[in-house]
Amino acid sequence: MTAYQRLTDAFGRIAAVNEAAAMLGWDAAAMMPPGGAPARGEQMAVLAGISHEMLTAPAIADDLAEAAAPNDAAAANLALMTEAHRRATALPRDLVEARSRACSACETIWREARKNSDFAMVRGALTEVVNLTRQGAKILGETLKLSPYDALMSEHQRGIGAADVAPIFAAYEIFLQTALPAAEELQRQRPGEKLPPGPYPAAEQEALCRRLSQDAGLDFASARLDRSAHPFCGGTPTDIRITTRYDEDDFCSALMGVLHETGHALYEQNLPRQFARQPVGTAAGMGTHESQSLIMEMQAVRSDAYLSYLAPILSNAFGKGITMAALKSRLRHVERSFIRVEADEMTYPAHVILRFRLEQALIAGELAVADLPEAWNSGFNALLGITPPDDRRGCLQDIHWYDGAIGYFPSYTLGAMAAAQLMAAARKAIPTLDDSLAQGDFSPLTAWLTDNVHRHGARLGFNELLSAATGAPLNPNAFEAHLTARYLS
Amino acid sequence: MTAYQRLTDAFGRIAAVNEAAAMLGWDAAAMMPPGGAPARGEQMAVLAGISHEMLTAPAIADDLAEAAAPNDAAAANLALMTEAHRRATALPRDLVEARSRACSACETIWREARKNSDFAMVRGALTEVVNLTRQGAKILGETLKLSPYDALMSEHQRGIGAADVAPIFAAYEIFLQTALPAAEELQRQRPGEKLPPGPYPAAEQEALCRRLSQDAGLDFASARLDRSAHPFCGGTPTDIRITTRYDEDDFCSALMGVLHETGHALYEQNLPRQFARQPVGTAAGMGTHESQSLIMEMQAVRSDAYLSYLAPILSNAFGKGITMAALKSRLRHVERSFIRVEADEMTYPAHVILRFRLEQALIAGELAVADLPEAWNSGFNALLGITPPDDRRGCLQDIHWYDGAIGYFPSYTLGAMAAAQLMAAARKAIPTLDDSLAQGDFSPLTAWLTDNVHRHGARLGFNELLSAATGAPLNPNAFEAHLTARYLS
Repeated sequence: MTAYQRLTDAFGRIAAVNEAAAMLGWDAAAMMPPGGAPARGEQMAVLAGISHEMLTAPAIADDLAEAAAPNDAAAANLALMTEAHRRATALPRDLVEARSRACSACETIWREARKNSDFAMVRGALTEVVNLTRQGAKILGETLKLSPYDALMSEHQRGIGAADVAPIFAAYEIFLQTALPAAEELQRQRPGEKLPPGPYPAAEQEALCRRLSQDAGLDFASARLDRSAHPFCGGTPTDIRITTRYDEDDFCSALMGVLHETGHALYEQNLPRQFARQPVGTAAGMGTHESQSLIMEMQAVRSDAYLSYLAPILSNAFGKGITMAALKSRLRHVERSFIRVEADEMTYPAHVILRFRLEQALIAGELAVADLPEAWNSGFNALLGITPPDDRRGCLQDIHWYDGAIGYFPSYTLGAMAAAQLMAAARKAIPTLDDSLAQGDFSPLTAWLTDNVHRHGARLGFNELLSAATGAPLNPNAFEAHLTARYLS
Repeated sequence: MTAYQRLTDAFGRIAAVNEAAAMLGWDAAAMMPPGGAPARGEQMAVLAGISHEMLTAPAIADDLAEAAAPNDAAAANLALMTEAHRRATALPRDLVEARSRACSACETIWREARKNSDFAMVRGALTEVVNLTRQGAKILGETLKLSPYDALMSEHQRGIGAADVAPIFAAYEIFLQTALPAAEELQRQRPGEKLPPGPYPAAEQEALCRRLSQDAGLDFASARLDRSAHPFCGGTPTDIRITTRYDEDDFCSALMGVLHETGHALYEQNLPRQFARQPVGTAAGMGTHESQSLIMEMQAVRSDAYLSYLAPILSNAFGKGITMAALKSRLRHVERSFIRVEADEMTYPAHVILRFRLEQALIAGELAVADLPEAWNSGFNALLGITPPDDRRGCLQDIHWYDGAIGYFPSYTLGAMAAAQLMAAARKAIPTLDDSLAQGDFSPLTAWLTDNVHRHGARLGFNELLSAATGAPLNPNAFEAHLTARYLS
């Protein structure tokens, strides 16, 4: 065996351990009885430890030093192996353990603090998390030749950095200052039709969600749809597990959730099988992943074409008159609000822009944790013109920072913007794309996405992938054009 | 840390890996879409490899050599650790791999051979499995100071050997020669009442099974009931997963299946928590495990007392008149038949006795694989007076040998006999036991079982445990008395 073959073996085994952990994670959210939680925690911790040990084994370092890639795809794989190994070995064990403990402790306190809207309660714990994350980011950045913040960001999405993102977000901020009031004014002038009141029985919602997900291309011979408190897409490429929850007063939330997760699932299902369980055979990052869920949910499903197809199907499934006009006013509505996860597609980026700026300042040491609530509230007001009445609806709302995930937030808006840019390119390449969506046929779109996104796996970074697919790296134009067409015409 | 503490840490980690594999095994049977199978195979193989590597690590050998147990329970734990390590390291790697490949290949061929009732097709593959198993058994026996067959048997159940079992089975064979014709004659004289025809809707069966399992003591805050092709009990002590399948023409099969698995599950749930993920904290073996499922299904559930409680509940649940007399004639019926898994409690041991004798002869080299069909058929006829018309209903019916499980079969009948012996002791200790069962109350029985069986974990071997609980090692008297009372009076 060559050194490269030994590495593909070893990374295949590491991936199998991580797949096992992914399945147990799904089970914990969708199936596990509450009494199973402590043992599950133990199982997950042991698997994570084993996976880390395997990745940092001296034999991996030796083989990486010796390995020669037999071809381009192997070279990309080898580069990703090298980066994963460097990332895993860069940080001193003491720091990793201290940070892990600090994150666990902080997350626990945060749950109480959010409930009580009491930032002071978690201030000390978050300070510890930020300090340890900053130390780690500095070391990681030196190892990877990136700024500390970019070192964190690149854990979630390779191939785009803060210097690329900042001007794009700044441009969007300017767009929003006029687009949002204009959209609100149009909504006032044209009050929408309402959907009929429920109940929409959960069993019927579930059957419909499964059918529409399948029609959108998800292969249920290699996937499941179940229920969990928070919708997500888990599992592995040949065994995808998506979940949602059902509200009997409102079918839209589950349906949009399932179609969103279906976008994630199609990406996983269409990853290059010849690189299964190899770094180059995985998704390109969380920004790219979000582009695939949002091109499904926001671009395709909420298009005029698909909604015209959907309205009679919904009417039929629920035995109620559901018009396209009512769907449009429910599913395309802008509103300034405090909670990110409830935000519409136009105001959502403002929530992300705020967090992106604040987390950079925290990591640079330019913003003290103690000053976060004030910085949050004034920043939020500058972006959306309203001020959170309390920290529960402000800087305490998201788990991310309190659990140590700093550098993740940009992915959401990178995904939304990339989805619009990809959709514009797909429409150009396939002039009949909307005719197909009007028939409920996603196959031309997914074939294009498979060819331009999915099949590349992790070979290309975020901007490389977008350039190859659309002719240009990320810019906000397509997204702004999409919002203008949908909300301002 | 002392050597013993390092060992408990290491065995705790090994157990966590095995728990993860157990959960994935449950998922594969109860949840996994078919497309997930190849990746699941990979995940299971990698976890098994990791678990084996951890158990055979040189540090384990060093610590075992050095460790001193701080108390009796620790001494028992250390002895079990030593045995597990010896077992895992005794066999040369080449032999383990050759046997594993031979078993996989043989099992695959067996599926076809059984379908076609063509023993010649699988003869060569089974010969390979038997030869490699015999080689391994010899080495294991030398390591563990046991005969080759006992070395195999002790993988499944410690604390009882072929020399103990043989006279017990011989005595039962003699009992059966008169008891079976007598029971058949009584059945002819007193033809039973029939249960009303179905349908018995699966959803109602499932709700009833869940309720009765819960009433029998299963804590669903730490357990689930799901569906799978073959009923089983999997998972971990704090997260038990039992499964069954539903036949809408016959509620008895699912209900008895669930209550059988509930017996297994209660054992797991009541294992000593202070030794969670330690060898001494696990069940005592497959024979003991089967005694717990059968004391539930055969002794308690099919007792006059419980059936009198059950009949009105079933009538109510299904809206049909279900009498105790009809339940008795359905659930207590003896019949000579060819298939072990369909056999009643009186003839079942004959199926096991045959296999016990044949597998000993195979391992001793006294029976050639080529002569197995003839030996099976004549042996079966000698025990039950009927001859299988083909090998599909003869020596091809069970997966066990073809998959390399030799030495397992005795566990079924050890369990059945131990269940009767334990039930007799419990009835003696608790004179009101049947009054409680007549109220649907299992708690006096399970409390007694927890105290006398469950809480000991794996501290005692099969006969030690029975002696402690009932005053005597295994003998067939209680089982024969039980059958006499149920079928011959």
